[in-house]
Amino acid sequence: MSVDEAFEGLRLLPYQDLGFAKIDHHRSLRKGVPEVVFGEGKSVEQITSIAKELAERAGRFMVTRVGPEVFDAVSGHIPDVLYNEPAKIIWLDRREGIALKQGVTIVTAGTADLPVAEEAAVTCRVMGQEPLTLYDVGVAGIHRLLSHVETLQKANVIVAVAGMEGALPSVIGGLVQAPVIAVPTSVGYGVGIKGLGALMTMLNSCSQGIAVVNIDNGFGAGYLAAIINRTRA
Amino acid sequence: MSVDEAFEGLRLLPYQDLGFAKIDHHRSLRKGVPEVVFGEGKSVEQITSIAKELAERAGRFMVTRVGPEVFDAVSGHIPDVLYNEPAKIIWLDRREGIALKQGVTIVTAGTADLPVAEEAAVTCRVMGQEPLTLYDVGVAGIHRLLSHVETLQKANVIVAVAGMEGALPSVIGGLVQAPVIAVPTSVGYGVGIKGLGALMTMLNSCSQGIAVVNIDNGFGAGYLAAIINRTRA
Amino acid sequence: MSVDEAFEGLRLLPYQDLGFAKIDHHRSLRKGVPEVVFGEGKSVEQITSIAKELAERAGRFMVTRVGPEVFDAVSGHIPDVLYNEPAKIIWLDRREGIALKQGVTIVTAGTADLPVAEEAAVTCRVMGQEPLTLYDVGVAGIHRLLSHVETLQKANVIVAVAGMEGALPSVIGGLVQAPVIAVPTSVGYGVGIKGLGALMTMLNSCSQGIAVVNIDNGFGAGYLAAIINRTRA
Amino acid sequence: MSVDEAFEGLRLLPYQDLGFAKIDHHRSLRKGVPEVVFGEGKSVEQITSIAKELAERAGRFMVTRVGPEVFDAVSGHIPDVLYNEPAKIIWLDRREGIALKQGVTIVTAGTADLPVAEEAAVTCRVMGQEPLTLYDVGVAGIHRLLSHVETLQKANVIVAVAGMEGALPSVIGGLVQAPVIAVPTSVGYGVGIKGLGALMTMLNSCSQGIAVVNIDNGFGAGYLAAIINRTRA
Amino acid sequence: MSVDEAFEGLRLLPYQDLGFAKIDHHRSLRKGVPEVVFGEGKSVEQITSIAKELAERAGRFMVTRVGPEVFDAVSGHIPDVLYNEPAKIIWLDRREGIALKQGVTIVTAGTADLPVAEEAAVTCRVMGQEPLTLYDVGVAGIHRLLSHVETLQKANVIVAVAGMEGALPSVIGGLVQAPVIAVPTSVGYGVGIKGLGALMTMLNSCSQGIAVVNIDNGFGAGYLAAIINRTRA
Amino acid sequence: MSVDEAFEGLRLLPYQDLGFAKIDHHRSLRKGVPEVVFGEGKSVEQITSIAKELAERAGRFMVTRVGPEVFDAVSGHIPDVLYNEPAKIIWLDRREGIALKQGVTIVTAGTADLPVAEEAAVTCRVMGQEPLTLYDVGVAGIHRLLSHVETLQKANVIVAVAGMEGALPSVIGGLVQAPVIAVPTSVGYGVGIKGLGALMTMLNSCSQGIAVVNIDNGFGAGYLAAIINRTRA
Amino acid sequence: MSVDEAFEGLRLLPYQDLGFAKIDHHRSLRKGVPEVVFGEGKSVEQITSIAKELAERAGRFMVTRVGPEVFDAVSGHIPDVLYNEPAKIIWLDRREGIALKQGVTIVTAGTADLPVAEEAAVTCRVMGQEPLTLYDVGVAGIHRLLSHVETLQKANVIVAVAGMEGALPSVIGGLVQAPVIAVPTSVGYGVGIKGLGALMTMLNSCSQGIAVVNIDNGFGAGYLAAIINRTRA
Amino acid sequence: MSVDEAFEGLRLLPYQDLGFAKIDHHRSLRKGVPEVVFGEGKSVEQITSIAKELAERAGRFMVTRVGPEVFDAVSGHIPDVLYNEPAKIIWLDRREGIALKQGVTIVTAGTADLPVAEEAAVTCRVMGQEPLTLYDVGVAGIHRLLSHVETLQKANVIVAVAGMEGALPSVIGGLVQAPVIAVPTSVGYGVGIKGLGALMTMLNSCSQGIAVVNIDNGFGAGYLAAIINRTRA
Repeated sequence: MSVDEAFEGLRLLPYQDLGFAKIDHHRSLRKGVPEVVFGEGKSVEQITSIAKELAERAGRFMVTRVGPEVFDAVSGHIPDVLYNEPAKIIWLDRREGIALKQGVTIVTAGTADLPVAEEAAVTCRVMGQEPLTLYDVGVAGIHRLLSHVETLQKANVIVAVAGMEGALPSVIGGLVQAPVIAVPTSVGYGVGIKGLGALMTMLNSCSQGIAVVNIDNGFGAGYLAAIINRTRA
Repeated sequence: MSVDEAFEGLRLLPYQDLGFAKIDHHRSLRKGVPEVVFGEGKSVEQITSIAKELAERAGRFMVTRVGPEVFDAVSGHIPDVLYNEPAKIIWLDRREGIALKQGVTIVTAGTADLPVAEEAAVTCRVMGQEPLTLYDVGVAGIHRLLSHVETLQKANVIVAVAGMEGALPSVIGGLVQAPVIAVPTSVGYGVGIKGLGALMTMLNSCSQGIAVVNIDNGFGAGYLAAIINRTRA
Repeated sequence: MSVDEAFEGLRLLPYQDLGFAKIDHHRSLRKGVPEVVFGEGKSVEQITSIAKELAERAGRFMVTRVGPEVFDAVSGHIPDVLYNEPAKIIWLDRREGIALKQGVTIVTAGTADLPVAEEAAVTCRVMGQEPLTLYDVGVAGIHRLLSHVETLQKANVIVAVAGMEGALPSVIGGLVQAPVIAVPTSVGYGVGIKGLGALMTMLNSCSQGIAVVNIDNGFGAGYLAAIINRTRA
Repeated sequence: MSVDEAFEGLRLLPYQDLGFAKIDHHRSLRKGVPEVVFGEGKSVEQITSIAKELAERAGRFMVTRVGPEVFDAVSGHIPDVLYNEPAKIIWLDRREGIALKQGVTIVTAGTADLPVAEEAAVTCRVMGQEPLTLYDVGVAGIHRLLSHVETLQKANVIVAVAGMEGALPSVIGGLVQAPVIAVPTSVGYGVGIKGLGALMTMLNSCSQGIAVVNIDNGFGAGYLAAIINRTRA
Repeated sequence: MSVDEAFEGLRLLPYQDLGFAKIDHHRSLRKGVPEVVFGEGKSVEQITSIAKELAERAGRFMVTRVGPEVFDAVSGHIPDVLYNEPAKIIWLDRREGIALKQGVTIVTAGTADLPVAEEAAVTCRVMGQEPLTLYDVGVAGIHRLLSHVETLQKANVIVAVAGMEGALPSVIGGLVQAPVIAVPTSVGYGVGIKGLGALMTMLNSCSQGIAVVNIDNGFGAGYLAAIINRTRA
Repeated sequence: MSVDEAFEGLRLLPYQDLGFAKIDHHRSLRKGVPEVVFGEGKSVEQITSIAKELAERAGRFMVTRVGPEVFDAVSGHIPDVLYNEPAKIIWLDRREGIALKQGVTIVTAGTADLPVAEEAAVTCRVMGQEPLTLYDVGVAGIHRLLSHVETLQKANVIVAVAGMEGALPSVIGGLVQAPVIAVPTSVGYGVGIKGLGALMTMLNSCSQGIAVVNIDNGFGAGYLAAIINRTRA
Repeated sequence: MSVDEAFEGLRLLPYQDLGFAKIDHHRSLRKGVPEVVFGEGKSVEQITSIAKELAERAGRFMVTRVGPEVFDAVSGHIPDVLYNEPAKIIWLDRREGIALKQGVTIVTAGTADLPVAEEAAVTCRVMGQEPLTLYDVGVAGIHRLLSHVETLQKANVIVAVAGMEGALPSVIGGLVQAPVIAVPTSVGYGVGIKGLGALMTMLNSCSQGIAVVNIDNGFGAGYLAAIINRTRA
Repeated sequence: MSVDEAFEGLRLLPYQDLGFAKIDHHRSLRKGVPEVVFGEGKSVEQITSIAKELAERAGRFMVTRVGPEVFDAVSGHIPDVLYNEPAKIIWLDRREGIALKQGVTIVTAGTADLPVAEEAAVTCRVMGQEPLTLYDVGVAGIHRLLSHVETLQKANVIVAVAGMEGALPSVIGGLVQAPVIAVPTSVGYGVGIKGLGALMTMLNSCSQGIAVVNIDNGFGAGYLAAIINRTRA
């Protein structure tokens, strides 16, 4: 059997071809998750077309990084679609009676990190989970964080969101047993270089049990937290 | 014979001096290609002047990276000039009965990479070729790409356009015999650093038969693909 | 109650002060993991002193990034200490009858990524787990990877190790439901910049369910994989 | 006593939880300074809420990096709040009869560095000090600086603010006994890279007694100068 | 048919599993090229094992970036293996009566770029081609280059190798119709940053028909040139 | 005599203190040049104040990097002030009967580099010189440049302005005896990184007799060219 | 009086000219500190010559960044010179009966940061101060740091030394009233980039009262701490 | 006349082809300077071959960046060749009775910058000039520099060499009328990044009349200074 014959089988796999986009309805089946569309860089028309297909065939999806004007356009075609403004996420879930799972805790260093944390939180909710949030507990006033040690130690997974120097995940990592997903944000100025400083801090962390996602990638952190938490005993 | 005498001969070579620009009508003759004007950073007046000269003397040219307002100005003087909006290219080809050559395939990882791919596609067309396009087949849902393996393996040259992590050319490079021209795009955010991340990925590729052009340089990739393809047996 | 009084309580917490190092015997208790010493930048004498304390009080520890000469010195004082040469890890576990848990799969793109993968693998073993390994399945010959799809889809957690362009985690991320911990390695040259290229690729990944650790940080990935896996249902 | 019990005490420490922010009224007590709010990235509503709490409970605070529209909103609720426009600082100090301490001197290389210097100066004033300012004495016309050597040598602490090549602190460092706090500014262009060039110059200084804060961080420099100066004999 | 069933077919594809490496004998068949092993980062033992398998089953392969000590080890097991010292390539081709194809021209800016150019040249030869070489014709003495214009214009593909400022491919690109593969080298110092300067120059080129490979990647350029040239009419 | 006494003398040196700026009327005397004000980052009010002082006391000055709105304000107070729009320079020279010196030649690679070249040209004119200009002779069509070799070889000093890959000064440097002042421009995109690419090319040049100024620093290049040319035999 | 006449006075200031170095005996007088020689990049012969001059005329100096072989050479000529090996400092202080001042506390995150901390400590001692040291109290096990809060709060100045993610100064800054001088170290790997990561963390700190010195610059931090502490009431 | 015919003339220009190098004997004639060979990256055999050709045909040349072992090899064939060890330059000048021209002054900030300054000085000497040198007058003890103001103001051209923060050229630029060629050196550590910090400082200089060469490029600065100085009235 040649490589080409082997690949041949893949041609039979269905996905929907809109020309400018190829929608993979199998993915949510294959990965057990909602279909996710990254909205940035797509036109309102493109997003609306994709959303209509996903609503009809899957009944469950989310579109990230979109403004209210996109929501207006999409909800014109899909009346039951939802929008979370700080998180900039459009989403739909027509399943009924889903019990939300607990265990993810989302923490921010400052108030300005809130939109990124909300992106993570809404992602968790679309994934069928109910995260706990704890905002503005950065290391410059460490007793604010330490007074929540018990809450942190009960979490199954922690998403730690921080801009500026990005030290929060390191301190949390030393206090808990759970995995910590660190999210650098572009909050800051000067040598923060739009989040690069916080990113480096988190990758260089000397605490254990930490991994990092891209700058401002609240979605990625929320998604990863949810798939870690969903199989927890 | 001195160096200076040797260079003397070059003074006799004609080109047209507009003061702010020196138009080289010999180039299209010498290289067998349309004259190309990089529109970014030139004023509407400068572009119009150059276009008028090229239309009159060569009858075939293209101007890249220009908005519809430039097309409006230019078409006021050259009524048969054409414009492709996503590609942002103004072009003219007064030759008749040109048969378009096939063999170039243009592939994108995502929907947002489309404008860069279109810049490559229009460039091919102005160069007398008819490219095949295959959009939104990025590596995150690899069966979408693999289901087109046969198409890819038939191409003479492949232009692979990708932002974000830019992994598409590496996977394609492992599947085909043809040269792959990789085009990083500025699609992405955070540590993507406006395409630098995708560029680095493509240059570091462990697949063979890949070379890379500047970020968002769809023109460069389309041009190179066309000159590779035109002499194919 | 003042902040200072609140902090007062912490003064009662025991740890062992060697002057140049403060050993925290509570950590393994608190986090349920072996004590870990980062060996790089510490003298042989310092490591030997710390190891003796840990062997005596905890009976379980690991020292990372140390050469065979450190092992020789340490094993002179702790005869039952073990050493894994490619992983460069000294370790001890005096507990008996520990059943190793399965579920972590460690994958590399190339042969040269092997030492980093081994650092992850040994870390898992010291943490009481038995990882599965799958080496040299990089994206340039993608059928080598795809032929193991079933194995990958059975994993609870995947550690994906890659240098050069670092595209492996993106492709895996699209195929599996499990979390993927991506480890960039310093394998490569030129614009790979000692692993920075691979790191950027992984952070920019458009696949979902991926987080990243520092370049060559096999330990960090193995540790995180183990704590995610240990609570799996 | 376990670590957890030790941390327990911290839970009793009062701070005010506004959900999106956790206000620490103890800080000004603990550190003897006004409460400081970093305004950038916070909404007008969030800043107003925080300011109202601080005005009521502490009677003394400052909000940095805010425009006049924020001042308008805040002064609607706190009529005696003040605003310094070049410094972009809102502040309040209801204490009476505070004698301003002298000893801090703030120097700039150019006229364009003035807003950053004013941020430092206003910070000093809110901290109870009266700084001396000396503007536009950069090294390209060094006799302007040297003619003030006596003034510089009398200072207890010097804040040296410079963009472009950032050489001012090095020259001052060689002339005085006092500590010099260097503030790079984003003034400049090209390879100045928004202040990175000046920052590097200052960190690489071969003069002694210099330390550096983030680019454009006039607040940080003024704050540090004030706490160094306040305990001077 | 599910994705998993589709991928199932790939499991039947043979490759040889040495544990630390997975050798793909189908690749040379599939891509019509010799199997290539990147030697850097592999141990002498690993390379010898792989080479023995490749010699036996394929009779044609090359190993790049290896020193003479690797050649000594490999030739102990494969007596007819060859080694090119400046190119640092071990290679074998047991096919007989292969006519070498012409059309690739390899040019360097300086004498110090020679090893990278030789890596490209030997790669071409192992691929069944006979490249022409033209060394030390950099732009600082441009008549040396211009005196070979006729030779350059006859080439089917040009590999242009340059360190320092890397301007050579831009000038060549303006003179010829053929595709130009630009190879930056790590020759230079200071702000050349080990070839990054030359790489940027080449990617930023305003000439048409140029694409770029990684720093010092003579192999990649030679390979790409050969596959472009082999299908030339 | 102490250092302090030595510096004392400097206190007697007059300059004019406007508070936000310290105008050094001695500079033009000391350096034999017009007073130059860098306009960027200064308010219209500040520039007008400085200009009035300079007009009154020196009768000769220039302000760089200012828009027409600044010219409008300044010319309201100084009716005989001049403005060059592409160069963005306000200037005044009330001296009479100054013969303009020749010898500086200003060359650009492309049309988009023109504003930077004009900044250099106007600077030369304010410095009492008459530069020759030669625009759009970049290396991609090298015969356009070579046809002017004689002109280039007659120059006393050459200012070579280029964006994109910035190769022009290297080629010129190999053809002439005169010093070449290279000016990188921010013309380009992608990995050009706002002129950093061209800057690196110029600093890495293997041609002799070249030095480089900051990105887009037409003023700096024109000034330096003028002071080199003014003392030419 | 002209600028030149003003500068004339400076010519009378004595310093010692060794040709390759100009020794400024006035500096220690002027700044009240020992003369300091940066040893790196100077030959043993050059250092010995300078040391002999300084010993004879000042009786008090220090040479930083020198190995034991330099000490051997210097002590051959100056028998009472001292050497601290971890700090790599040669020093001499022939003054008698100097009481060492207390108030500086030097803290490190890890054991590997010790040499940089020692450079700071020895500098303090040569400056007439007796620093307190507290090593290996990094944020990954925060109770080790918190248990010393009282000690930290008693310090007049704190030098906080940390590599890896460099978060230590931020946490300390939130706990104390004293100025914190942050010293990034090159301890770490990968994206730590030889200390750049820690440096960025420290500059981006959201805590107040922190300034930063160059990577591994223990001397600079010790020097600055000492001059801040010496004038404390 | 076609472009190709025009270039044809250049083919008649003689240069010597050694295969690995193309020696251009016309250059010294054309540019009136000695032939210069950049020694780094060339083998001893290659340098010897080139040197023999140059000695025989031109009688005047220099080879930069070579160690004493190269000198030993070359002087075996050319007994009258000279070597300057700190400058690492081999050179020959068989012309007789050349009067050395004065006017170039070479200044360094520190003692460690000496080798780069010597490379500039020897280059001047081979170019027929006698530079004045002034070492270790950096800005940290500015009276050392200011006491030489008169000397500096008499120079025709100044080469200012500095590592660390690289502020020296800015201060000199403000004091003199002559052009200043700034040479950053790799002296320094940490965020100096092997001279990049000093380079940025110099390019960002707010003084006028400064241009910059590559890091450690003493040759380039000396060469440029000499060609500026040689035509001085």
